[in-house]
Amino acid sequence: MRIAIDAMGGDFGVDVTVPAAIQSLIHNVSIEQILLFGDKPDIQSCLNASSLLQASPQLLDRLSIVHSDHVVDMSAKPADVLRQRQDTSMLLALNAVADGVADACVTAGNTGALVGLARHSCGLVEGIKRLAICAQLPTSLSNTFLLDVGGNVDCSGEQLHQFARMGCALVNALNGRDEKVSSQPRVRALSIGTEAGKGNSAVNAAVQLCEADSQMHFEGLIEGNQLLEGVCDVIFCDGFVGNIALKSCEGAASYIRSSAHELLKSESALSLNDDYARLMQAIDPEQFNGAVLLGLKQPVIKSHGSSGANGFAAAIQKAVDASEGQLIEKLEFALH
Amino acid sequence: MRIAIDAMGGDFGVDVTVPAAIQSLIHNVSIEQILLFGDKPDIQSCLNASSLLQASPQLLDRLSIVHSDHVVDMSAKPADVLRQRQDTSMLLALNAVADGVADACVTAGNTGALVGLARHSCGLVEGIKRLAICAQLPTSLSNTFLLDVGGNVDCSGEQLHQFARMGCALVNALNGRDEKVSSQPRVRALSIGTEAGKGNSAVNAAVQLCEADSQMHFEGLIEGNQLLEGVCDVIFCDGFVGNIALKSCEGAASYIRSSAHELLKSESALSLNDDYARLMQAIDPEQFNGAVLLGLKQPVIKSHGSSGANGFAAAIQKAVDASEGQLIEKLEFALH
Repeated sequence: MRIAIDAMGGDFGVDVTVPAAIQSLIHNVSIEQILLFGDKPDIQSCLNASSLLQASPQLLDRLSIVHSDHVVDMSAKPADVLRQRQDTSMLLALNAVADGVADACVTAGNTGALVGLARHSCGLVEGIKRLAICAQLPTSLSNTFLLDVGGNVDCSGEQLHQFARMGCALVNALNGRDEKVSSQPRVRALSIGTEAGKGNSAVNAAVQLCEADSQMHFEGLIEGNQLLEGVCDVIFCDGFVGNIALKSCEGAASYIRSSAHELLKSESALSLNDDYARLMQAIDPEQFNGAVLLGLKQPVIKSHGSSGANGFAAAIQKAVDASEGQLIEKLEFALH
Repeated sequence: MRIAIDAMGGDFGVDVTVPAAIQSLIHNVSIEQILLFGDKPDIQSCLNASSLLQASPQLLDRLSIVHSDHVVDMSAKPADVLRQRQDTSMLLALNAVADGVADACVTAGNTGALVGLARHSCGLVEGIKRLAICAQLPTSLSNTFLLDVGGNVDCSGEQLHQFARMGCALVNALNGRDEKVSSQPRVRALSIGTEAGKGNSAVNAAVQLCEADSQMHFEGLIEGNQLLEGVCDVIFCDGFVGNIALKSCEGAASYIRSSAHELLKSESALSLNDDYARLMQAIDPEQFNGAVLLGLKQPVIKSHGSSGANGFAAAIQKAVDASEGQLIEKLEFALH
């Protein structure tokens, strides 16, 4: 298993991606090689600074650096990035999986640019109407995946139904399930009520398709307040709704976090400080980091741009699991 | 100022609505009368049990009971409720404001039934295309209102623009602002990015209308994670998106709450118990309770069904503020 990493992507670049790569090599013996794409001197100085590498220099045999002069700016317009087609660390990492040099690609870079470049580099699985981004919801109650969260606005019922099928393929891949023999993932449609017909027109159309789909274990509608309850494996919606729902959860969590900080300042409650840290650790979204671009011919994982090393390592783990679980074969099977 | 209250609505009925009514009479000298609609014996026994009333029996002069035999069931289908047209506590309370017997109506009852009954009883302000439900977001940073959260799915850009105008009228009414002389509320459209064009087709169309609207202080797009940051006064979206966004915030908060409870069980950390209670009080959504049905010819306020007495009292306060702030005149002005 070889993983291509865009070392320059995200808010923190090499300071996060390089330590995460080293961490992953230690914990995953199934990773033969990690290819770090980016500025060679920057990457090298991070490697030199790693105490883990000093303790285990043999890890260096499983690391290689592929230099690139260019980086996709986090605020660059996707259209500009696609037009320029520079040899950025992101594009070179994508090309590595497209060319079979690596088995999966991980980046924390500019999402819009990634979607465009990945589509072009890796190509879409036959029959895919739209690429979807599938995020794992930050719930420890169960593993629930939400798609699309990437911005496919104004989707048809048919497209939503396809998202549901792709989500099932991902869950089967990550769980190492064979969809021909084992139980199917439980699927729900995100909506504003749980009774039949409580969707908008696209959701109502998708529900009909899912109910008629003998390959799918469809359990009906789900509301926004149930997203983190872990009641099903796959929740589908269009990218406009999914993006807003996911970010609303994140915004609420960060509001509660900052309220607690405010309280701490005024109360100087050291006890809360400790217990609060434990609470925040228990609900830390980093452990669920790593959204999967579904519909591509190769596994491509998008880490949150502001993720730390533990979060980026979780994204690398998703890449390993998706590849080992034969995501692409399962996608092709789900869509044939 | 006379307030009509559906005493039977919500998950807890008279056990919440009656204590909240008494509380409101104590805190609001501008409330001349509260009319409690519902089962007379039930209401009476709640009044008898009130220690506040025993201490201040003169409050009884400002309370009256209007008996009704029927109640709108929380799980009843709106279509059935509308067809039956029974003299329910909800309908009688709405009729009281429609007939001018009361100035505003508050209920924690079945939302779908309320929208249908209120539309029929009170009627729509001229020019209104769709009634919208406007919720105050649970943020102490500022007063931000989100609409529609009530389920107007598949809205046009024109309808969204009208929601924005109605939201401004509400903010002006609650703040006692005169829109002809003072600064306009800051308006944003909920979307999946902040750059222009980052909406779905309805949002993009609404943005054009808002930008061309010289009466409106439109500040562009806002993302889901910024909902609670208090950066503007009014955020508009269709009811499908708004309902999911609001419930996603609620779901995340309740997930964090239950994670903290789990932690407490295992850690038996009494200190967290205290500090946690203080934190939960600081971010208590009850203080922001009370969504306003916008577009009706009278002020109608919807309390959260699971709200306690403090939350229901907050909804009564919204009714008082909306009425004193001349919400309906401001709506008519905003839509003329």
